[in-house]
Amino acid sequence: MKTFELSGIGVDSLVFAERPMPPVGPRDLLLRIRAASLNYRDLAIARGEYGKVSLPLVLGSDAVGEVVKAGAEATRFAVGERVIPTDTPDWIAGPPDERMLRRRLGGTLPGVLSELLVVSEEAAVPAPAHLTDEEAATLGGAGVTAWQALYTADRLRPGETVVVVQGTGGVSLFALQLARLGGAEVIVTSRSADKLARAAALGATRGIDTRATPDWDQEVLSLTRGRGADVVIDVVGGASLARSIAAARVGGVVVVLGFLDGTSSNVDLPAAIRRSVTLRSYSGRSRESYEGLARALSSSDIRPVVDRVFDFDAAREAFAYVASGAQFGKVVIRI
Amino acid sequence: MKTFELSGIGVDSLVFAERPMPPVGPRDLLLRIRAASLNYRDLAIARGEYGKVSLPLVLGSDAVGEVVKAGAEATRFAVGERVIPTDTPDWIAGPPDERMLRRRLGGTLPGVLSELLVVSEEAAVPAPAHLTDEEAATLGGAGVTAWQALYTADRLRPGETVVVVQGTGGVSLFALQLARLGGAEVIVTSRSADKLARAAALGATRGIDTRATPDWDQEVLSLTRGRGADVVIDVVGGASLARSIAAARVGGVVVVLGFLDGTSSNVDLPAAIRRSVTLRSYSGRSRESYEGLARALSSSDIRPVVDRVFDFDAAREAFAYVASGAQFGKVVIRI
Amino acid sequence: MKTFELSGIGVDSLVFAERPMPPVGPRDLLLRIRAASLNYRDLAIARGEYGKVSLPLVLGSDAVGEVVKAGAEATRFAVGERVIPTDTPDWIAGPPDERMLRRRLGGTLPGVLSELLVVSEEAAVPAPAHLTDEEAATLGGAGVTAWQALYTADRLRPGETVVVVQGTGGVSLFALQLARLGGAEVIVTSRSADKLARAAALGATRGIDTRATPDWDQEVLSLTRGRGADVVIDVVGGASLARSIAAARVGGVVVVLGFLDGTSSNVDLPAAIRRSVTLRSYSGRSRESYEGLARALSSSDIRPVVDRVFDFDAAREAFAYVASGAQFGKVVIRI
Amino acid sequence: MKTFELSGIGVDSLVFAERPMPPVGPRDLLLRIRAASLNYRDLAIARGEYGKVSLPLVLGSDAVGEVVKAGAEATRFAVGERVIPTDTPDWIAGPPDERMLRRRLGGTLPGVLSELLVVSEEAAVPAPAHLTDEEAATLGGAGVTAWQALYTADRLRPGETVVVVQGTGGVSLFALQLARLGGAEVIVTSRSADKLARAAALGATRGIDTRATPDWDQEVLSLTRGRGADVVIDVVGGASLARSIAAARVGGVVVVLGFLDGTSSNVDLPAAIRRSVTLRSYSGRSRESYEGLARALSSSDIRPVVDRVFDFDAAREAFAYVASGAQFGKVVIRI
Repeated sequence: MKTFELSGIGVDSLVFAERPMPPVGPRDLLLRIRAASLNYRDLAIARGEYGKVSLPLVLGSDAVGEVVKAGAEATRFAVGERVIPTDTPDWIAGPPDERMLRRRLGGTLPGVLSELLVVSEEAAVPAPAHLTDEEAATLGGAGVTAWQALYTADRLRPGETVVVVQGTGGVSLFALQLARLGGAEVIVTSRSADKLARAAALGATRGIDTRATPDWDQEVLSLTRGRGADVVIDVVGGASLARSIAAARVGGVVVVLGFLDGTSSNVDLPAAIRRSVTLRSYSGRSRESYEGLARALSSSDIRPVVDRVFDFDAAREAFAYVASGAQFGKVVIRI
Repeated sequence: MKTFELSGIGVDSLVFAERPMPPVGPRDLLLRIRAASLNYRDLAIARGEYGKVSLPLVLGSDAVGEVVKAGAEATRFAVGERVIPTDTPDWIAGPPDERMLRRRLGGTLPGVLSELLVVSEEAAVPAPAHLTDEEAATLGGAGVTAWQALYTADRLRPGETVVVVQGTGGVSLFALQLARLGGAEVIVTSRSADKLARAAALGATRGIDTRATPDWDQEVLSLTRGRGADVVIDVVGGASLARSIAAARVGGVVVVLGFLDGTSSNVDLPAAIRRSVTLRSYSGRSRESYEGLARALSSSDIRPVVDRVFDFDAAREAFAYVASGAQFGKVVIRI
Repeated sequence: MKTFELSGIGVDSLVFAERPMPPVGPRDLLLRIRAASLNYRDLAIARGEYGKVSLPLVLGSDAVGEVVKAGAEATRFAVGERVIPTDTPDWIAGPPDERMLRRRLGGTLPGVLSELLVVSEEAAVPAPAHLTDEEAATLGGAGVTAWQALYTADRLRPGETVVVVQGTGGVSLFALQLARLGGAEVIVTSRSADKLARAAALGATRGIDTRATPDWDQEVLSLTRGRGADVVIDVVGGASLARSIAAARVGGVVVVLGFLDGTSSNVDLPAAIRRSVTLRSYSGRSRESYEGLARALSSSDIRPVVDRVFDFDAAREAFAYVASGAQFGKVVIRI
Repeated sequence: MKTFELSGIGVDSLVFAERPMPPVGPRDLLLRIRAASLNYRDLAIARGEYGKVSLPLVLGSDAVGEVVKAGAEATRFAVGERVIPTDTPDWIAGPPDERMLRRRLGGTLPGVLSELLVVSEEAAVPAPAHLTDEEAATLGGAGVTAWQALYTADRLRPGETVVVVQGTGGVSLFALQLARLGGAEVIVTSRSADKLARAAALGATRGIDTRATPDWDQEVLSLTRGRGADVVIDVVGGASLARSIAAARVGGVVVVLGFLDGTSSNVDLPAAIRRSVTLRSYSGRSRESYEGLARALSSSDIRPVVDRVFDFDAAREAFAYVASGAQFGKVVIRI
């Protein structure tokens, strides 16, 4: 089977390879991958920014595939069903432990950028029927991550306010859509008026152009009549985190999901304490969260925002496009 | 000031009276009541079904009024603001205690069916601006009760399923609207095809006519592909509770908010245990819940369902109409 | 291997049998069972009170065993380790679903009253080192059930009050010990002064002899200065449940874990609503709860209360002893 | 009445003054203060490190006093009762809002270092009977803060592990005692072998001397067999925070309660995300938390650790002693 692999450190080491099909155990599923989507993490791994990995490594953690073979004792899915493999296969539900987080697709385990993939039947969920393959392939790193930030440890409620900081990548747009689905108000910040307009079209209640308004935290306070946001989704990190804390309400939550602007943030402790702010972060994704998201999408008309679709043969171009940061939504590879 | 009072036990003892205006303390507000809405509880109190009360008692716990005077030290509201008095004035937030629940408007404290009402400034919230007086008067017993059932101890999430049993009174319709606002699916049961049609118009995902389908719990299981409902809102009690438990998913919640069909229910313990069902109930309403609901309504286009509006002079007719059980939504009295 | 099986409905159908050793899959463990403990549920299944089962059925869900063989891919345990198999093997953590609860040891799956048992490596936890085999065999139905009631959905805190109703069986004594470990006060009720004395020796703060004080709910209110108990653990059901609700504080929790006095309870809905009581129940046991309990025991000096130990050959006598209701703590079978 | 006030910025501006007794409103209590305890925050306010305050300001937020007069409508307490005023008088229970946090004793409101104090009857709790005045005066900033960190948003459970970083001040010792009361294991770090010995005498499971073991986070991982701590209580801030995050388990919580070593901390975002760590902070203290703590202490044999008691006339020496950092436990002023 054909795979797209990291053969050394650096994006120049991304290569195609031909590998033997892995064995299918009695409770395993063999999936023919139809589409995969890329996350910033895939790029970071290729660049060596994500710690050591065993090479060669098939990349990718988000995909949708068709069951082409099921082990003799597997009962959860039938051949022909369209399923989404879960990124963290040992994490079913509840809190994770270190052992679960150590095994992840396209990290310590072979990834999804491959014609075929073998997963445990416990590590897959049904794909929502109304989504295309390209859309269904975006549910993990973007959709489930946003779901976890909004609807697991902290559960957003109608009428609350979410700020999506620099919110036009895959996670951010999902957070916008899911927060709106839950009846919340959503404020999006961006350096691009065009992206703000597109966010508004997706339902954003308000947009803040951070070139015109660099002290966007003050603008959030003003838009919320001094109260601040219930939840701030921050994928930027670096110096932005201080503003995220300032924009949160007393007792509010800042969810740190990325670090596009820097891996290190200076936290002003008295400021954080004065507002009783909680900083959260999430690693890995439970099957329960995949299921929760799939259920939410199935009973809504939300469609994931797919920016561009590349053919498998153009996988390197897809990585380059993610590196450009120009995308609005997800970058998908059809396999 | 003119009041509508219970002078003895029984609806025949509902009378108008003229009472002196109560004194306004330094942190109190004097409200001119504009509209009030009735709850089944008001009727139950009048009938003597709700325990002993001190007579005469001004009835009513739900209203909207205008601040006509504020105590010298009151800072939360200005004269002229439109506010909603909270039913349980000592309960601000968090869990209640018995002392808080003992003091309630129209129960142990004078109620809102009165031209004027004095409340502590801590026991009022701003009325959502987009609601009429008649609509704003319905937020307590109907709206806040539904809010507490869905978004406090248990927090509904998008994609979950709510069943509203015999769901065409005030609480039930609010539960329907608030669950839809939060992205949930809502199944409504009713004995009336007409009421089901009106519930559908308000957004209900599915309706079950319990005359045609008396074993509606099985139908809920079927509509949820065997999973059951995440939350069942039961205002009926009596024999219905067993079906509510059977309709809940494993680990689901049945919220018991009333007992229209009987004050006593036989619970099949092995059935409840087998499905790990939680039975919840709520008494009183915190200011925090009023605020949460007001915020949710303000950022939505939900309008409370007002069935009929009576003039103050027709207050007895309003009680009779509530007793008939014919209403779809709330019964309001303009004062 | 020798097993103790239910060959028909009724305790007279409990028989020994000789069965072939089951195959050990690549991620399975083969356990040599050292000791098992009985639960009321085992007796109820034998009597046919627990729904239909496939016969013959090896009974028992609680045991401790030694790993005598591990599948080629199993990494969690080594040969020679002493482990406890989890009762609900598919339920790792988080909320359960119906599919997980359908597969339970000694119910739909072969039980532990057997010389050998094969389990998935994911369905076992290390036995606390300081416990004897007889003690370690009691952790599931008694210990984990009590743990779930006190420290999962509702989390007991120091200074809170727990009532253990008729609290001298295995679950109840574990609840007493675990609540005391967490710094709570514990009130035990019993019909036997002797059992109350033994409960006091285990740390119970107060005992209520329900022969002398049949309205024990009023006594609980009095002992808590009118406040009521934070958590009431009720294994009795039947008419007792009404008193459990009356003994709970406003906003308190009644955990229904059994129905020794009757499978059906009449719930006075207005009474439950007035006190905002939550009724909870639990079915099955997650691995996470086994782990939480094991950690709590390991850092304490708690020893499970073992009433009597029977040899495997006397397994029928052990069942008869459970049926007598005379035990104080657990009934164990050494295998 | 005699007060101890801040008349300008800087500890040299701490002076005694004679002030008129404040008026007692209808729902107020007049307290004769018997003892007060100091917090680092009092010193920080005096030094001008805590933002602007209105001068002159009576300092102090922790005390115990006797009710010497109750307003005509006050019903919660009788004259002669011994009560503890709550630091944040408007915050009764549930989540706080900014308006509640703005009003605090010895910050924006007159403090407790005064012969007399007037508080609302809603802003006081009964003092646990078994504590001396000196002990009861320590419950707020030390005890309630520790209680909130361990038993509110996150609820510690038996068998979990708490790390108390540089844990020999008032909050830290209370956290140690309360965690032990709840059945948790407690690891204390300190730069002083003597203080570690005293922490051990209070029940600490383990001590780490950070002079001998500067990478104490690794030692925590080793002591917890690689798992990490469930909760880390950090009053140090600065560079220490990175180690606190590293010492937490996957999904664990770091509670930031102070910043003795620096008000700014550099957070390594990928490290925090990789372990899914939550950073919490708390400001102010709800009455509900005072009540929870008082209940926990009343049912235990815990006595707050009082290091030194000063007479009111020696209040300046008491502040100097707090500034020295030499104390083990609380510094109390008898009034």
